[in-house]
Amino acid sequence: MHSWVDGQPADNVPLKDRGLAYGDGVFETIAVKAGQPLLLDRHLQRLEEGCRRLALVVDHGLIRHEVLTFATALGDGILKLILTRGDSLRGYGINPGAPVRRILQGSAPAVYPPTHEVEGVRLFACATRLAQQPLLAGIKHLNRLEQVIARAEWQDTEHAEGLMLDMSGRVIEGIFSNLFLVRNGLLLTADLSRCGVAGVMRAEVLAQAQALGVPVAVADISIEQLQQADEVFVCNSVYGIWPVRGCAAMSWPVGPLTRKLQGIVRALLDI
Amino acid sequence: MHSWVDGQPADNVPLKDRGLAYGDGVFETIAVKAGQPLLLDRHLQRLEEGCRRLALVVDHGLIRHEVLTFATALGDGILKLILTRGDSLRGYGINPGAPVRRILQGSAPAVYPPTHEVEGVRLFACATRLAQQPLLAGIKHLNRLEQVIARAEWQDTEHAEGLMLDMSGRVIEGIFSNLFLVRNGLLLTADLSRCGVAGVMRAEVLAQAQALGVPVAVADISIEQLQQADEVFVCNSVYGIWPVRGCAAMSWPVGPLTRKLQGIVRALLDI
Repeated sequence: MHSWVDGQPADNVPLKDRGLAYGDGVFETIAVKAGQPLLLDRHLQRLEEGCRRLALVVDHGLIRHEVLTFATALGDGILKLILTRGDSLRGYGINPGAPVRRILQGSAPAVYPPTHEVEGVRLFACATRLAQQPLLAGIKHLNRLEQVIARAEWQDTEHAEGLMLDMSGRVIEGIFSNLFLVRNGLLLTADLSRCGVAGVMRAEVLAQAQALGVPVAVADISIEQLQQADEVFVCNSVYGIWPVRGCAAMSWPVGPLTRKLQGIVRALLDI
Repeated sequence: MHSWVDGQPADNVPLKDRGLAYGDGVFETIAVKAGQPLLLDRHLQRLEEGCRRLALVVDHGLIRHEVLTFATALGDGILKLILTRGDSLRGYGINPGAPVRRILQGSAPAVYPPTHEVEGVRLFACATRLAQQPLLAGIKHLNRLEQVIARAEWQDTEHAEGLMLDMSGRVIEGIFSNLFLVRNGLLLTADLSRCGVAGVMRAEVLAQAQALGVPVAVADISIEQLQQADEVFVCNSVYGIWPVRGCAAMSWPVGPLTRKLQGIVRALLDI
C-alpha cells in the first residue's frame, strides 16, 4: 500500500519528527469506499478542532484535497491521516515557523468477523482507566499509550473490544469505539469533556437518532446505568455499529434501536 | 550530528513505527562528556522500568553497549535514546514478535544562560495541569503533549522553566525538570506515583542529600508548602541544579543547601 508525506510518495519520517518525539500531533482513520472517503466532513471537522487545540497551523483546504486525491488512488481500504508538528531540535518548545507534516497511509479494508455485527460482541472490562485531561479530551491526538495498555489486557478472541472507565469510575468508551446505551427509549453516550475521543461515528449516530426523533443525551454514565441499560452498542467510523451482548457479569439483548441505527449507518458505509 | 536506528546509521523511521502512531515507547536524554554518558546507570534503570511497565522486551545489555559506543563517537553533547514498539499495522493491539526499535540521536551540548545556575531562575506558573495516570507515572514515555502545551504558555525569556501542578492542585514538577524545596532543613520533592517523570537527577539529588545526612522526604506538596519554603530549586540530568528565585507572586532566596547540592552535582556533570 502506498503512503505520502507532504504530498509526495514516502514511507518514512525524519527522526526529528515531533510526532515520534512527543506524540505531538493528531490523526484520523478514514474508511474509503470506491475512492470516496466516508464521513469526510466529520473527520476533517474533528481534525480541525484537534489542530486548534494543539495550535497546529495547517491549510485545511490542502488537506482535504490530498485526502480526496489519495482516496481516489486507494479505491477501497483505510486511509490514515497523521499531522505532526514537523521537526524540532531537543526540547518541548515549539518553533512556530516549522511546517506541520502531513502523512497519509493506505491500508486494506478492515475485516472483522461478520458475527460482530449480526450477533453482537462481548467487551473486556479493562482495568486500565482513562486519565482526566480536559485540554486533550475529545480530540484524536497521538498520545495513545492508555489505549495500547488497555488493548494488551486480553488476548482471547472472545472479546472484540474493551470497556474503559475513567479514574472516577465513569463509563467512557471502548478502546477504538464509542459506547451508547438505550434506557427507557433514551439514547445516551458519555460526556467526553474530561477524557475520551469524540468519534466521528458517535457524532453521526447522535445526528441520525435526532433525525429519527429519538431523545438523546450526552452525560456522565455510571456503571449502574450501564448495567440497567435496555440496549448497549459500540460504534466507530470503520465498522459502523456492533451490538454489545455482554461485559464481565453484565449482559444485554440486541435491541430494536440498535438494529435501526445499525441499518442506517451500514447504508452510509456501504455506498 | 549522527544518528542510529537499530545500530545502523539512519536518520528516519518507517511511517508504521508505533512511536509515531501512538507515542508507544520510552526515551532518555543523556548528557555526554568526553565520550562518557553521565549518570548512565540511573538512565538505564529508569529506561528498564519504563520497558517493564509498557511490556517492551529489549536486550538491555545491547542498549548499554550501543549507548557507550555512540557516546564515544559523540564526544561532548546530548544523546537522545528512544525505544519504540517497532512497526505495526493499524490498531492498538501489540504484536509480541515485532522487535523494539532502538533510536540514538546526537546533538550539541545544551547551552543555557550561566545566570540560570548562578542567580537562579523564575518559573512560569503553568495553567496546564498534569493528568493523573498511575500506570504511566514516573516513566519517561513518548506521550508528552501535556509538556508541549505547557511549554507553549509563555514565550518570554524571563521564565526559564514552568511549574506544573496536577489536576488536584498538588505541586509536581517543572516541564523538563523536577522540583525540590527545603523547609526547616528538610529536603522535599513530590511523590510521582500519580503523574510526573521521575528524573535521573532527582534520584541523584535524593541520594546525595542522604549521603550528606540531610533529611529527605518524597511526599505530596501543596502550593502553600511551596510558598513557605526556605529554598526552592529545579534539576535535571543535563543542566544540574538551578535555584528558583520566584514563581508568580512567590519568591525565595538562593539557599545554602541548594548551593551545596548544586556544587556536588556540578562536579558530576563536569567530569
